[in-house]
Amino acid sequence: MRLRELLESVRRSALSVDEALDRLGHLPYEDLGFAELDHHRSLRQGFPEVVMAEGKTTEQVAEIAERLAAQQDRLLITRANDDCYQIVRERLPDATYHTSARAVTLDRSGQTLHPGVAILCAGTSDLPVAEEAAVTAELMGSQTDRMYDVGVAGIHRLLDKVERIQTAKALVVVAGMEGALPSVVAGLVAAPIFAVPTSVGYGASFHGLAPLLTMLNSCAAGVAVVNIDNGFGAGYLAAVINRQSRETPSG
Amino acid sequence: MRLRELLESVRRSALSVDEALDRLGHLPYEDLGFAELDHHRSLRQGFPEVVMAEGKTTEQVAEIAERLAAQQDRLLITRANDDCYQIVRERLPDATYHTSARAVTLDRSGQTLHPGVAILCAGTSDLPVAEEAAVTAELMGSQTDRMYDVGVAGIHRLLDKVERIQTAKALVVVAGMEGALPSVVAGLVAAPIFAVPTSVGYGASFHGLAPLLTMLNSCAAGVAVVNIDNGFGAGYLAAVINRQSRETPSG
Amino acid sequence: MRLRELLESVRRSALSVDEALDRLGHLPYEDLGFAELDHHRSLRQGFPEVVMAEGKTTEQVAEIAERLAAQQDRLLITRANDDCYQIVRERLPDATYHTSARAVTLDRSGQTLHPGVAILCAGTSDLPVAEEAAVTAELMGSQTDRMYDVGVAGIHRLLDKVERIQTAKALVVVAGMEGALPSVVAGLVAAPIFAVPTSVGYGASFHGLAPLLTMLNSCAAGVAVVNIDNGFGAGYLAAVINRQSRETPSG
Amino acid sequence: MRLRELLESVRRSALSVDEALDRLGHLPYEDLGFAELDHHRSLRQGFPEVVMAEGKTTEQVAEIAERLAAQQDRLLITRANDDCYQIVRERLPDATYHTSARAVTLDRSGQTLHPGVAILCAGTSDLPVAEEAAVTAELMGSQTDRMYDVGVAGIHRLLDKVERIQTAKALVVVAGMEGALPSVVAGLVAAPIFAVPTSVGYGASFHGLAPLLTMLNSCAAGVAVVNIDNGFGAGYLAAVINRQSRETPSG
Amino acid sequence: MRLRELLESVRRSALSVDEALDRLGHLPYEDLGFAELDHHRSLRQGFPEVVMAEGKTTEQVAEIAERLAAQQDRLLITRANDDCYQIVRERLPDATYHTSARAVTLDRSGQTLHPGVAILCAGTSDLPVAEEAAVTAELMGSQTDRMYDVGVAGIHRLLDKVERIQTAKALVVVAGMEGALPSVVAGLVAAPIFAVPTSVGYGASFHGLAPLLTMLNSCAAGVAVVNIDNGFGAGYLAAVINRQSRETPSG
Amino acid sequence: MRLRELLESVRRSALSVDEALDRLGHLPYEDLGFAELDHHRSLRQGFPEVVMAEGKTTEQVAEIAERLAAQQDRLLITRANDDCYQIVRERLPDATYHTSARAVTLDRSGQTLHPGVAILCAGTSDLPVAEEAAVTAELMGSQTDRMYDVGVAGIHRLLDKVERIQTAKALVVVAGMEGALPSVVAGLVAAPIFAVPTSVGYGASFHGLAPLLTMLNSCAAGVAVVNIDNGFGAGYLAAVINRQSRETPSG
Amino acid sequence: MRLRELLESVRRSALSVDEALDRLGHLPYEDLGFAELDHHRSLRQGFPEVVMAEGKTTEQVAEIAERLAAQQDRLLITRANDDCYQIVRERLPDATYHTSARAVTLDRSGQTLHPGVAILCAGTSDLPVAEEAAVTAELMGSQTDRMYDVGVAGIHRLLDKVERIQTAKALVVVAGMEGALPSVVAGLVAAPIFAVPTSVGYGASFHGLAPLLTMLNSCAAGVAVVNIDNGFGAGYLAAVINRQSRETPSG
Amino acid sequence: MRLRELLESVRRSALSVDEALDRLGHLPYEDLGFAELDHHRSLRQGFPEVVMAEGKTTEQVAEIAERLAAQQDRLLITRANDDCYQIVRERLPDATYHTSARAVTLDRSGQTLHPGVAILCAGTSDLPVAEEAAVTAELMGSQTDRMYDVGVAGIHRLLDKVERIQTAKALVVVAGMEGALPSVVAGLVAAPIFAVPTSVGYGASFHGLAPLLTMLNSCAAGVAVVNIDNGFGAGYLAAVINRQSRETPSG
Repeated sequence: MRLRELLESVRRSALSVDEALDRLGHLPYEDLGFAELDHHRSLRQGFPEVVMAEGKTTEQVAEIAERLAAQQDRLLITRANDDCYQIVRERLPDATYHTSARAVTLDRSGQTLHPGVAILCAGTSDLPVAEEAAVTAELMGSQTDRMYDVGVAGIHRLLDKVERIQTAKALVVVAGMEGALPSVVAGLVAAPIFAVPTSVGYGASFHGLAPLLTMLNSCAAGVAVVNIDNGFGAGYLAAVINRQSRETPSG
Repeated sequence: MRLRELLESVRRSALSVDEALDRLGHLPYEDLGFAELDHHRSLRQGFPEVVMAEGKTTEQVAEIAERLAAQQDRLLITRANDDCYQIVRERLPDATYHTSARAVTLDRSGQTLHPGVAILCAGTSDLPVAEEAAVTAELMGSQTDRMYDVGVAGIHRLLDKVERIQTAKALVVVAGMEGALPSVVAGLVAAPIFAVPTSVGYGASFHGLAPLLTMLNSCAAGVAVVNIDNGFGAGYLAAVINRQSRETPSG
Repeated sequence: MRLRELLESVRRSALSVDEALDRLGHLPYEDLGFAELDHHRSLRQGFPEVVMAEGKTTEQVAEIAERLAAQQDRLLITRANDDCYQIVRERLPDATYHTSARAVTLDRSGQTLHPGVAILCAGTSDLPVAEEAAVTAELMGSQTDRMYDVGVAGIHRLLDKVERIQTAKALVVVAGMEGALPSVVAGLVAAPIFAVPTSVGYGASFHGLAPLLTMLNSCAAGVAVVNIDNGFGAGYLAAVINRQSRETPSG
Repeated sequence: MRLRELLESVRRSALSVDEALDRLGHLPYEDLGFAELDHHRSLRQGFPEVVMAEGKTTEQVAEIAERLAAQQDRLLITRANDDCYQIVRERLPDATYHTSARAVTLDRSGQTLHPGVAILCAGTSDLPVAEEAAVTAELMGSQTDRMYDVGVAGIHRLLDKVERIQTAKALVVVAGMEGALPSVVAGLVAAPIFAVPTSVGYGASFHGLAPLLTMLNSCAAGVAVVNIDNGFGAGYLAAVINRQSRETPSG
Repeated sequence: MRLRELLESVRRSALSVDEALDRLGHLPYEDLGFAELDHHRSLRQGFPEVVMAEGKTTEQVAEIAERLAAQQDRLLITRANDDCYQIVRERLPDATYHTSARAVTLDRSGQTLHPGVAILCAGTSDLPVAEEAAVTAELMGSQTDRMYDVGVAGIHRLLDKVERIQTAKALVVVAGMEGALPSVVAGLVAAPIFAVPTSVGYGASFHGLAPLLTMLNSCAAGVAVVNIDNGFGAGYLAAVINRQSRETPSG
Repeated sequence: MRLRELLESVRRSALSVDEALDRLGHLPYEDLGFAELDHHRSLRQGFPEVVMAEGKTTEQVAEIAERLAAQQDRLLITRANDDCYQIVRERLPDATYHTSARAVTLDRSGQTLHPGVAILCAGTSDLPVAEEAAVTAELMGSQTDRMYDVGVAGIHRLLDKVERIQTAKALVVVAGMEGALPSVVAGLVAAPIFAVPTSVGYGASFHGLAPLLTMLNSCAAGVAVVNIDNGFGAGYLAAVINRQSRETPSG
Repeated sequence: MRLRELLESVRRSALSVDEALDRLGHLPYEDLGFAELDHHRSLRQGFPEVVMAEGKTTEQVAEIAERLAAQQDRLLITRANDDCYQIVRERLPDATYHTSARAVTLDRSGQTLHPGVAILCAGTSDLPVAEEAAVTAELMGSQTDRMYDVGVAGIHRLLDKVERIQTAKALVVVAGMEGALPSVVAGLVAAPIFAVPTSVGYGASFHGLAPLLTMLNSCAAGVAVVNIDNGFGAGYLAAVINRQSRETPSG
Repeated sequence: MRLRELLESVRRSALSVDEALDRLGHLPYEDLGFAELDHHRSLRQGFPEVVMAEGKTTEQVAEIAERLAAQQDRLLITRANDDCYQIVRERLPDATYHTSARAVTLDRSGQTLHPGVAILCAGTSDLPVAEEAAVTAELMGSQTDRMYDVGVAGIHRLLDKVERIQTAKALVVVAGMEGALPSVVAGLVAAPIFAVPTSVGYGASFHGLAPLLTMLNSCAAGVAVVNIDNGFGAGYLAAVINRQSRETPSG
């Protein structure tokens, strides 16, 4: 490692302090050890890199998947179709395909899942996005409590589930069209809500713009929003918070 | 009246049928009596012309108001400030100013108001628009049941009022920011809902675009939308339907 | 039923009032009887749940259709293609396919249709949306008077039909491109108009945004707007109002 | 003038052809006479440069106005307020202020106005834009037939004027809010229509975007659109066409 | 014809004037002869109805085409593909297909074309829209002078054609991407320019929104805009003006 | 309390079970105890209702503030100007005004603040929004570590603070203009980030739309977004998570 | 050449100066030699015309390519697929296809490439656009230093390359989704940066609108933006500047 | 300086290599010398930090200005009004105010300006933005050649200046409304063009959106775009390139 060598040269007086200062100014960052930041981060987050299959060939996805699986005990491929899974499975026979989530997972960690994440969605057509959130949170160590088809137009369906909703440490709330569900849920719980607008719908939904704006304008405190259809992002955040809420408090 | 004269000329054979046909083709529509369509319509609708004060000088508004008041027993001026009212009152001392609705009304009809219109709004800042709807509906003969500050983030406040909501023949539901209230209400009632997005709010509300899109995308059947801040339009429709629902059925 | 049991336990003194209060606070809403709200609503509205085929597999649609048909005497499936209909027909041989409306209906109610709903559209390419509105209104018990291809660029075609238009209790007006028809119609009638923008057109129509904005900005009182291409929503509202206008007035 | 001098030097053999070719390649365009294109154009168009007061100090406007008035017998200043006019009048005492058009004109040409331009507007709040069009067309030699407040929600007011409308060689049709008037007018006439959307209105008018899109999507042939509130542009085009329609045909 | 009968009844005193007045108020507009307005208009405009093939089945197009061809000596079908043409040709063997314009025409009028319409386009990919304009103008009796690929990035290509441009009575200027061509041309000519934005391009062209806005904001007087890709609309207007400019002046 | 009375009537057999069931079905929700949900929620969240001063008169704000302060030991008024504070202080002399946050707070709870919330902002003009987030989080019991003016164009300013950043349990990252800071921070930490776009900037910032879109599209996992300028919303969420991360884990 | 002839006629006195002046005013621009501007420009820029294959048939592309290759020693065809290349290769066997750049090049110039252009991209899916920039810059005589997959969410990957980045005379920085990379890079270098937003991504990326706005709002000086996906434009500018930075300074 | 001290401790063996490595890992970046990157960059760019007055109090601006002026010999304050200048002048009496550019500058460098930057603008209302660019470029050491009011609607005004335009090493082209000027200029020169859209104009200019899109879609190679009204950004880039084009080539 070059930084150690440099310091040892200084120690041996093989390098003057001025020369060392000068060289430090020109060393690439990695040699200074900052590339390890990345490694630390991955360890700390307890979750390795994720592969988005969309926009890559299945061959590329399979190769990346194989390489990652050699270094880490869990793997997530999002937006993967069945073809993609078939190629991945040839290399990683213990990979699993989650049809409605359009996701491939691999979990060799033997981890125990801990409850605390609730996943709600407004309509059945929001289900793929909700499932992407659920699969992500589970791979990150959270048990998920799925409550689907609880849209605000039939409010009693939601009110029936108040108790289950209130036990969650973090919630993912998925909705397309008018996107009103997160606001209603936020009025019933204290835990943070990650709202996911979906692109389902037609006309003035404008591919998810309508529920996106609705969610950003939520008059209820406790709602934050991720990108349209970004189930992964919401599931990830919910799992992070669920894990944080389990750690021994420092103070 | 020229049409009568023409027919009488035909009758007197002072005008041949061919000449009459030719002249009919060239007479302006009004002379044919179609301008009365307008009069009929006003009679039929039971509601005379409305004056929008915004974009007119107070003098202009006062003049139009005086002229209309000479012909009809009710008058509505919307988007009127207090200055405007002071000038109008000089000419029409029995006019009333509704501060929060920013409306001037005059009602010399002695009409009895009939219940059937409910006006809901999500937050206190939506109140001026809700009041404009209420004042309009009342001037058109409807009693209104106002339920304000029943936003979806505190859903029980709305659920408390289910019975009142369910007795309405038509509902006006006003909401800014996320605009989710009409969808929730639509799940609780059978009567038509006129949703009014408001321009209150900030940021990604984009001056009412967010609640407008939300309402257009309502997944609940029974919701139609009017322009941003158009309390008048919604109150008008609700009153029309309330009146229609009281008429003796024809079949 | 659990709520009854709880009350009977209180009556039998098997449960103290305090315990009962506590349990009531924890019972899911359904057990308290609120799920019946939904049932009541469906009864009250006289119209059962609707299935939107788009975004579901034909198998899923067929299953939902069969289940609903077991409980209710009428059924509506919107945005259904012919394939979808073929599968549905295997299970429900008395279902009907409306080609231009892209809708499947089932009506075992033997109901009599009552006149009062007019359906207008501006151009022939708006026809599928107009037909969706018409089929919806008919299944809900309204006779419909269809007036198609009466766009404003040939205003006499519309003026020819003033009488038919004026007899309606509620109107559905469908238009794409410039979307001007509802404003013109609103000047001729007293009944409420439900305007439906369509996504037909090209260029600056922006998939229906242009007629949507036109309709929201209508300078004529009496126009409310539903989502782009939402023929169902407008037909539903028109039928609700037509039915309400037939009921014996309460006051 | 330098181009003449160059040619005379060639003639006198004071300059060789090669040298002349070389110099021609380096002469600024104006010296080649192309600046006269501008002069020709101004002569041909029969209308000199126009000054838009908005975004200039009143002093700047007055100076430009004085300079232009020294060279041409007519002058138009658009978007001018009364202050601006007072300063201009000090230098050009025969200038006229058109209050509702917000325009200053000067006409020392003694021209005779020729009929052929019709100016229609939908509502009274569109009047300033319509007046800007009218004043422009008149200064360019056209008589204008103004028909104001003929919006489509009271269609008979327009139909009453069909004959006047049909005699125009070119029409300016101004409308805000829903902007439907040009389409209806286009169905009644053969002459070209210049549609002007206005920024009056509120909510989903989005400062004129709604009528702009409406007009661009007109299903009637014969409608072209200018910028929001651009009365000048439409009046200019109408006058150009009216003048062209009066010239002796070439073929 | 019913109006004649009514008048004759009045003449024969079979109908009193009062009764006649009453019946006139209830007669549909068509019976009053207003449907002939349409006929008159078509005569006056010298151009019959146009069929847009897009959004219709080829069978529908062929039927409409056949019916129209029986009544009028010219026919235009826009946005027609080759399949559509093949079906049309079976019924109308003398119809012509214009490949790049995607238009079918039929001209049995034996008319002589008169010069006066110039068609310019900025790039080769704007050609289909320019050709649609050209074919339209030609069918309406105008000779067209086509100047293609004269985009502003090579300004000399345009300047080379100044003389041809300046002889036109009306110009169609087609441009995609930045849409700057109409402004430059407007600086060179006195005749009206109909600018057509096209949807060619990518990225921030946003399907033609960029050139549309450019053209609406043209700082040169004399430019009006039609819908994105609407070559027909521009060609129609140019031909109308060219024809008007040939008529004997009335004053 | 009515629910208790009802149960006691059942117990005393003063009311039959059937009657009780019927009355339960008609009791307003509040009487059933659901209004307490609200109370529970407020207790559970450890944070009472917040007042947004914008859109209310200072008198209204002062009244609401006084009423709330009578029931709860902490109070937050957002978007309050100095005038508003002066009126509030007359009634609540121990209220504090936070100038740059434009917030009034009252804290009689004697609570100890716990570290764990980091607040970053990109530029000095984002400071008011960042301060609103900080004041909110502090009133909710979190110590905040403020790191301001650490925009990505001088990346070393951010890298200098990596250690401080990495100790946070939740981060609020505020940025206007390009809004890139949250993505960069998300690459350095494991804790959840609440990104707040601000409306500062000009031109293509479009009042905060640009940073809003940037943040929604963050390619880094762990970022969720709140409304433009909504410092309160982000500070609230960060404090909720910080508190949750301190609670004794349940499993 | 006509201009020479004209001058010689003047010289021979075969043409008077007045006649010559008159003819000069009517000669098309090309005859005056201005068409050579184009030729000069192409010489000066050291880069001939580029062909965009998209929107042309492969036959058209091949023909244009052959014709250009006859006149110039280098050729670039952008947005070309493999089919297009196969046809081009039949005519130009020494053409090369760059798969990921989707570009065909031909270089018979034997030029030496000079270092100075750096090409960075944020993610692997931005690679095609980055490669288009690289291929363009190379054909224009610049060596390129490609640094791919250096997105801001893993900032150390970028910091590792600071030295390479700082040696560039001009940089192309390509990014989709949030588009934050150019701002960060601009903080590290002095040379100009050409930012290219890409249309990769989903949801609120809105086909590249999000990164486009981000880049336009960059708070770092030294960033200019080209169209979404316009790798060619950025590579062209970088190469121009790299070449300019190598020329002997004039002052 | 701490990094030097650390190295000297290693040299004196007062610190072991392992300890040194550990401390390096915890030292803030600045102590490692990375803050000097900033200093290097500022030296290299030859231009110190710029202050944007908008959004700051004049007191704040004056303070920052004074502090910066103590460290650097040149200073630029943009978007400064006269009040701001008066306060700055009290502390920095040799500061200059550029009224139309709305900028304050201070130049104690005694630098010689080098020609090479051309600044063009389309209309007089674009002048403030053009002047901001000019003042910026001049303070950075470039002479500027200003060519104002050369909009494309009078193309000869631009063509007159071709020679001056072609001598520039970099051009700033400012335009509002339709924004077509950069494309036309790009067809005439080889040097890079920085296009600046301005927010002047009205209606469909949408505060600069129209020229922004025009410029991004320029069909001419060699155009890059900065934010709306960002004269500073364009002037900065032009000066950077002009300076680079003067440096002795390295290869």
